[in-house]
Amino acid sequence: MISFTSDYTEGAHPEILKRLQDTNFCQEPGYGEDSFSEDARSLIREALGRPEASVFFLVGGTQTNSTVIDAVIPHYGAVIAAETGHIAVHESGAVELSGHKVIILPSHEGKMAAGDLQSYLETFYADAAWPHMAHPDMVYISFPTEYGTIYSKAELEAIRKVCKEYKLKLFIDGARLGYGLESPSADVTLKDIASLCDVFYIGGTKVGALCGEAVVFPAGDAPEHFFTIVKQHGALLAKGRLLGLQFQALFTGGLYFEISRHAIEMAALLKKVFERRGIPFYIDSPTNQQFPILTKEQMDALDGKVLYEIWGKLPDGRFITRFCTSWCTAPRQIEELDSLL
Amino acid sequence: MISFTSDYTEGAHPEILKRLQDTNFCQEPGYGEDSFSEDARSLIREALGRPEASVFFLVGGTQTNSTVIDAVIPHYGAVIAAETGHIAVHESGAVELSGHKVIILPSHEGKMAAGDLQSYLETFYADAAWPHMAHPDMVYISFPTEYGTIYSKAELEAIRKVCKEYKLKLFIDGARLGYGLESPSADVTLKDIASLCDVFYIGGTKVGALCGEAVVFPAGDAPEHFFTIVKQHGALLAKGRLLGLQFQALFTGGLYFEISRHAIEMAALLKKVFERRGIPFYIDSPTNQQFPILTKEQMDALDGKVLYEIWGKLPDGRFITRFCTSWCTAPRQIEELDSLL
Amino acid sequence: MISFTSDYTEGAHPEILKRLQDTNFCQEPGYGEDSFSEDARSLIREALGRPEASVFFLVGGTQTNSTVIDAVIPHYGAVIAAETGHIAVHESGAVELSGHKVIILPSHEGKMAAGDLQSYLETFYADAAWPHMAHPDMVYISFPTEYGTIYSKAELEAIRKVCKEYKLKLFIDGARLGYGLESPSADVTLKDIASLCDVFYIGGTKVGALCGEAVVFPAGDAPEHFFTIVKQHGALLAKGRLLGLQFQALFTGGLYFEISRHAIEMAALLKKVFERRGIPFYIDSPTNQQFPILTKEQMDALDGKVLYEIWGKLPDGRFITRFCTSWCTAPRQIEELDSLL
Amino acid sequence: MISFTSDYTEGAHPEILKRLQDTNFCQEPGYGEDSFSEDARSLIREALGRPEASVFFLVGGTQTNSTVIDAVIPHYGAVIAAETGHIAVHESGAVELSGHKVIILPSHEGKMAAGDLQSYLETFYADAAWPHMAHPDMVYISFPTEYGTIYSKAELEAIRKVCKEYKLKLFIDGARLGYGLESPSADVTLKDIASLCDVFYIGGTKVGALCGEAVVFPAGDAPEHFFTIVKQHGALLAKGRLLGLQFQALFTGGLYFEISRHAIEMAALLKKVFERRGIPFYIDSPTNQQFPILTKEQMDALDGKVLYEIWGKLPDGRFITRFCTSWCTAPRQIEELDSLL
Repeated sequence: MISFTSDYTEGAHPEILKRLQDTNFCQEPGYGEDSFSEDARSLIREALGRPEASVFFLVGGTQTNSTVIDAVIPHYGAVIAAETGHIAVHESGAVELSGHKVIILPSHEGKMAAGDLQSYLETFYADAAWPHMAHPDMVYISFPTEYGTIYSKAELEAIRKVCKEYKLKLFIDGARLGYGLESPSADVTLKDIASLCDVFYIGGTKVGALCGEAVVFPAGDAPEHFFTIVKQHGALLAKGRLLGLQFQALFTGGLYFEISRHAIEMAALLKKVFERRGIPFYIDSPTNQQFPILTKEQMDALDGKVLYEIWGKLPDGRFITRFCTSWCTAPRQIEELDSLL
Repeated sequence: MISFTSDYTEGAHPEILKRLQDTNFCQEPGYGEDSFSEDARSLIREALGRPEASVFFLVGGTQTNSTVIDAVIPHYGAVIAAETGHIAVHESGAVELSGHKVIILPSHEGKMAAGDLQSYLETFYADAAWPHMAHPDMVYISFPTEYGTIYSKAELEAIRKVCKEYKLKLFIDGARLGYGLESPSADVTLKDIASLCDVFYIGGTKVGALCGEAVVFPAGDAPEHFFTIVKQHGALLAKGRLLGLQFQALFTGGLYFEISRHAIEMAALLKKVFERRGIPFYIDSPTNQQFPILTKEQMDALDGKVLYEIWGKLPDGRFITRFCTSWCTAPRQIEELDSLL
Repeated sequence: MISFTSDYTEGAHPEILKRLQDTNFCQEPGYGEDSFSEDARSLIREALGRPEASVFFLVGGTQTNSTVIDAVIPHYGAVIAAETGHIAVHESGAVELSGHKVIILPSHEGKMAAGDLQSYLETFYADAAWPHMAHPDMVYISFPTEYGTIYSKAELEAIRKVCKEYKLKLFIDGARLGYGLESPSADVTLKDIASLCDVFYIGGTKVGALCGEAVVFPAGDAPEHFFTIVKQHGALLAKGRLLGLQFQALFTGGLYFEISRHAIEMAALLKKVFERRGIPFYIDSPTNQQFPILTKEQMDALDGKVLYEIWGKLPDGRFITRFCTSWCTAPRQIEELDSLL
Repeated sequence: MISFTSDYTEGAHPEILKRLQDTNFCQEPGYGEDSFSEDARSLIREALGRPEASVFFLVGGTQTNSTVIDAVIPHYGAVIAAETGHIAVHESGAVELSGHKVIILPSHEGKMAAGDLQSYLETFYADAAWPHMAHPDMVYISFPTEYGTIYSKAELEAIRKVCKEYKLKLFIDGARLGYGLESPSADVTLKDIASLCDVFYIGGTKVGALCGEAVVFPAGDAPEHFFTIVKQHGALLAKGRLLGLQFQALFTGGLYFEISRHAIEMAALLKKVFERRGIPFYIDSPTNQQFPILTKEQMDALDGKVLYEIWGKLPDGRFITRFCTSWCTAPRQIEELDSLL
């Protein structure tokens, strides 16, 4: 059985396991004050070209989203997301648990349009009743999006401009950041991401780590008492070394980018498997998530041999599916899929 | 430099690393639906002698405390803890973040007394204004406590009795459960713990795991939609396998108990190091945390060579310190301490 | 200057002021245990034909919505509303403050369609990832809606049916309940409302009271410790008598219905003022809120003499406006408007 | 039957009812933008000698406490109170509902000691683990306290000094402010109160109003979007005029102070009734709450004729009781009590 259901079906990149092994008996302080975390923070600052950046390691994506949002905006603040955004759909109301409303805007293949944002905010402030409404203080976008699409530099700049005009913070969910940056369609780099937002994170869980997300405040302006906030959100790992050493591994010798690139190459192969058969895609994704539209017959052919996700059913009876590649996908897995179809 | 600062200064028990290595490329579903987690749940149910128990794996202690409390009691409910309880002191207000008041009772060397609890509740309901007060719905205790002490079976039964009388849930924080159960002073077993409370957890982070706490509802009555609640609290690990395989390792062949016992044996050695010199203890702890009272001279002797925590200063200038042993403490570390003092 | 901006521009019905005066020096207990509140609860139970109903008096609408929602559904629960629903738009995130997500469905002239609800829930449970999503536990609708429209009995029954099928509570915001029930278009009575939902409230603030909303659990199944929950939400009035005596006045001799009817009659007159001039309406509202579409010239004619709300601007330059009548609107105010236009 | 159970057993001062009557048909905007509220704000600013002060009207005490605390400190912030403070005991966890921990210090006849505060904060910051603890950002005190006692100017200055040193906001709950200021023991004025804290409120509910508390930010530095925060907390009254006109009445011609003085004079009479009989007091209160210790026989004498609160039972079988006077207490009520004893 081969699984393309997600990019977190395996353990971790071997380099991470090796480092776990090598450092196992080093005694280190907890809560991110270990030497591995310290080193990982330096490596990330270096990769960003920003010695002033604040870097923190949290465990998972939903946790990071709710903690960062709650830390950065006032308690009464609302966060604006595309209606397909992870915080709007798949976090069981984690953002609301801390008291923040998620305001949704239309999704354009997973992306928020700067024009929609501008228009929402214009209408908001034009309404005399706005003080009776949840106050928008942040924009949340994902790069790449939940549909595998990526924002162009121009799109990010346009959103950033609106945010500045209306004094909203811009937060980029980078749970799959590597897969976005290494897409041949991407015209932004990690440094651009850091320049274009107030806070973002570099996803580890889906890009080769056992767990871990590196939160970055590029300007070094982490909220006061962020450590305490992280703890309050249950997001502070006692053995912070586990997070530190993983990001240390991923940001040594460009491993993070290299394995992201691999996933993108595998996605290109995967894409061809479907294209060759004239199988259409629900969305034209340039990253590691692919959304082929399969017939019942095609699905039957894979039954019991290949796993993937079903995202919806079309009126004509075909299914929208999701196939993910990852840092770990092997060419032979795609060949096997090819032979089965 | 040797560190006795905590029981989470090293990585993980080698058996865990081995298992990580061996299973690394197995493809498994996320969110605790992997085969390792399934197996670990069975092993724990077996160790409890309770096939009906519900078992969930969360990442860390504070997270587990706030998630379980929020899941088990109504939103308006308050939780009663000893004033030294972890949720009362060292969780940055995590329980309050979900809206729950922590009501504190006196601490008797870290423990809550059933009599104090009874008396609080009698007084509460005798007060005609009780509907204006936060409603007590749960009792939180730690086993062992934050001061290394442990409840006797009789003490637990007495607390349980009061809980039943006043319809409060009893929740046992077992972040260091193994170290409590394996103490020669303990007169309760894991099965007893399961019989004496509504929910508890088996701590992994401090007992040989990289991270992970196993939440157990002994009667199999986990709150409805507990999975969703865990997710909402940012406590659901994508690669649940990481938690599953660790508890699988710890509950295979009694490893959890064996390594806990080792820590207790090391604590006995450590104790003797101090006792031999007439160094008194702040609290007589039968578990892996020891609280010797050191003079400035004694501390100077260790300076730069041994790490430990300072918990307070006595009026006479001496310091209350904490030395922890763990699954990983080596006899030679204690010998070195001995030679330094 | 005449104001049609809202239905709360004046003080209270004279009968209420009289009762305030008459009872001013009676000594009564606080927090709703006064004899006026007791009597008002009886009068409301009688009007409902439900001696078993639980009735509580709260101060205002937003407060009532957030308190009731938080009391009735679990902490992790989400509430479904039309996208124009008061809780979705005009409550500054009050529902989210207690941790609950507001899920929005399309609005059909302010109303939720049972079909949309059914379809949302079918899709929700068909999605294998639903445990990762906020769990829907309640439907919130307003009667009449924020656009002055009202649900027919058949529409309410259809929504109720879906709620029962998917185990959702149905909550009716009756901030303007009287104006809905007394509309000639209404085919439901107060008793019907009570039969068709799990909890609703009878709005006082907008129907002749200084403040006050009467929350009704028709089946007498108020959540346990509802008093404490109300207090926790800051919604418990010390001088509960102020609420009690107002509802006592409103439910003596059918005053609530009589003054609601008056507002509806005034709305009919108002409607004619616009219709006579061929002024169209944005929505065909059968209640006390009317939404004429005015030209700049028409608005100029009213400038400085008549107040009303502006709800939006049409592409052709005309404005959607809102004119409210109330228990207090006098025919001569409408005549004056007529003469000005 | 005469009731001394609280200072909110009657309606409102006749001047308020008169004003309600006189203004009933004036059309005014809602939400505190009415002319009465505007005028009341001016009157209060004048009484404070602070034209720059921001003034807001909320409905009740618990609501005001939780709204102000949540508005002024960050979401993760904790508030320090005496263990007898209203927010610590009698608000059903309202402060915690918004996520804030209430840290308690010893109560000295209802008061917090600056020394205890200083010592708590010194210990807090001396503890290396403080980032793991709830972060103290505010001190909450009541003037007068829940036990009727009042702080001297020197005591307030001492607390203020500690607050400044550790950057905590000082919030004074003035639910019974008038009764404190008009006590002959008081050495502070309203202007002093305004100078000695960051935010306080002038209680209306217990001092002659039907409801209402006037929140004052003396320096004019109300938190940004405070209106929205008030709305989010369900504390924004639609007919804000009800609050405005009451404070207008209370701050015209010094009525607030005059009726407070009356209550204090009545308390002096009441005190004598008990003293004359050698009945001791639990606390020596210089304000309108008195705490005589009664025997069973004395209580029997009052049974069915006089109401008061029972606060506790002493080991010797006597009871601590509370008798309140108010703006409305008549000398003949005290005479009647006298004759009954």
